[in-house]
Amino acid sequence: MTGSVTMAELQLATRNHGMPLETLRYPVTPVGLHYLLIHYDIPVVDPSSWRLGIDGLVDQPVELSLADLKAMPSATRALTMECAGNGRAALDPRPLSQPWIIEAVGTGEWTGVPLQHVLSAAGLAPDAVEVLFTGIDRGLEGGEEQAYQRSLPVEVALESGALLAYELNGSPLPPQHGFPVRLVVPGWYGMTNVKWLSSITAIDTPFAGYQQRAAYRMRQEADDEGVPLNRMAPRSLMVPPGIPDFFTRARTLTPGECVLEGRAWSGTAAITAVEVSTDGGRTWSAARLDSAPAHIGTWQGWRFAWAATPGDHELCCRATDATGDQQPLEIPWNVGGYANNAVHRVPVHVVGP
Amino acid sequence: MTGSVTMAELQLATRNHGMPLETLRYPVTPVGLHYLLIHYDIPVVDPSSWRLGIDGLVDQPVELSLADLKAMPSATRALTMECAGNGRAALDPRPLSQPWIIEAVGTGEWTGVPLQHVLSAAGLAPDAVEVLFTGIDRGLEGGEEQAYQRSLPVEVALESGALLAYELNGSPLPPQHGFPVRLVVPGWYGMTNVKWLSSITAIDTPFAGYQQRAAYRMRQEADDEGVPLNRMAPRSLMVPPGIPDFFTRARTLTPGECVLEGRAWSGTAAITAVEVSTDGGRTWSAARLDSAPAHIGTWQGWRFAWAATPGDHELCCRATDATGDQQPLEIPWNVGGYANNAVHRVPVHVVGP
Repeated sequence: MTGSVTMAELQLATRNHGMPLETLRYPVTPVGLHYLLIHYDIPVVDPSSWRLGIDGLVDQPVELSLADLKAMPSATRALTMECAGNGRAALDPRPLSQPWIIEAVGTGEWTGVPLQHVLSAAGLAPDAVEVLFTGIDRGLEGGEEQAYQRSLPVEVALESGALLAYELNGSPLPPQHGFPVRLVVPGWYGMTNVKWLSSITAIDTPFAGYQQRAAYRMRQEADDEGVPLNRMAPRSLMVPPGIPDFFTRARTLTPGECVLEGRAWSGTAAITAVEVSTDGGRTWSAARLDSAPAHIGTWQGWRFAWAATPGDHELCCRATDATGDQQPLEIPWNVGGYANNAVHRVPVHVVGP
Repeated sequence: MTGSVTMAELQLATRNHGMPLETLRYPVTPVGLHYLLIHYDIPVVDPSSWRLGIDGLVDQPVELSLADLKAMPSATRALTMECAGNGRAALDPRPLSQPWIIEAVGTGEWTGVPLQHVLSAAGLAPDAVEVLFTGIDRGLEGGEEQAYQRSLPVEVALESGALLAYELNGSPLPPQHGFPVRLVVPGWYGMTNVKWLSSITAIDTPFAGYQQRAAYRMRQEADDEGVPLNRMAPRSLMVPPGIPDFFTRARTLTPGECVLEGRAWSGTAAITAVEVSTDGGRTWSAARLDSAPAHIGTWQGWRFAWAATPGDHELCCRATDATGDQQPLEIPWNVGGYANNAVHRVPVHVVGP
């Protein structure tokens, strides 16, 4: 990766951070290390006056307090979340937005009310086709003033295992993760998971707001209608071995056995293989996969014992899921810079004996 | 701020994040929003086998477990911590390192054992002049392989109110803040506060390791000996009012009364004034200061009621401390890009009536 980024991109990078790759060692990402992408400002919400409206095409519109939600049935799910823009900074030319290199991911243990429970209690009308989620956060984007909003098709809202989460890793949501309540949808890219929820509205036509019509679509030309992004493409990442140089992050290690480790996920289907290359992607060997996770879209660990020999090496990993989808060697380009799940490459220098 | 930054700087920015300025609203920064600067990798430490060595020129060298430390007297202190490199990205030419814009700060409520207690129990020898703190984290910097190390003069170690902290905001330290135990020194810049402590060593000559001899010194020329950085210069920051544009972060607000708010601190002396300018620094008015904090170096809140009129405005704030030290209008340059505490400037657009 060469070149430079603009000060506007840097401004976003100092706010919205990635997950340092060495923390792939944790099956559940500690709070503060999970990636964050916050479109506008983090709102301060008073939980005592906060209410969640369930409205639109429902039989029983209702306003729920945090206490109301906590009194409902709850579930806890470890779910991997990745930004749809992860990998954007490697594209050439580089789309101007949050300049993620490769680290916009994390796995949270989310606790909340199954969305299905809340929607069933309210009673979806037969003509409801989508469910619209509106956040408290407001800003301008593409010249439009807006609250952050995204929708889900009714069947996804009811059947995906989505939660209205009020806890992360056993504690109340931190402000930056959507306190007091956010949506989390297993297997879908991060923009789906609307934070600081204020209302959930059943609607009879597909939502055409900015975050669905303009952003988060795969396009080859700026004026294409494009295809909406939804489920995470298969990806694997590795813990960079050895020790880093502070500024360049170049890695140095000693010769001998080195256990490479990392995690892999896909939002569509189970991971069936992770392979490792120690020669820049010319030859590949199977890594050992940890046992499969409880949910599609939750990462699982992998390991590979490498006999490190002196010299320079390019370590790579790639995942394949049960649909046969495999991470590509080349970086796929699109207008918005989304879903670049190219093979993870980690150059290392092994010192002489 | 114009220009561009290199991919190496971006790589650091995606790992080491700032505190989004809207979270200045919290007197104690929620976990995950406090700034982070991690030179090497975040180590995974097993607290059951971890030991802290107290050694060197002491009467009673000792190895302390986490349980040993927790059995000692403890104190809880809300302390503001700022990176010495905060503001670096605004320098021209820009020193190449972590490209902080202005947000490398946070206030934690740290609980731990007073360093003075541990050193007194061990018994400092009369010839001890400094106390050296060594972290578990290893890396390369300036061509030197090293564990992260910094020292304090004996009188600062004993009299500054420093803590060996094992809790942040009432919970065990998160990995990224130095689990299980780190140093925190009231009023000093962030590099002082060695994380993932492995040993504390009393020494009879000033420490000349990389982080003290090469880094963290004020120099006008690269070959100057330079002056070591220690206490935080006075600084104030404001919550940017209105709503942001996602990409540019440009701020828009409506006309009428707008209460500007923020926080101010100095590592040397109490804050005596915060002033606000709504015309780019030509004229200044006093802001109302909240009550003074318990410790020098802990931020205090300020407020200023502004009657916002349609048009473009450059809002500014500046702090003065009890030594008379005041934030400068112009950006001070130095080789390492340290201690740029120039006035905070926030351009805003107020929409027409």
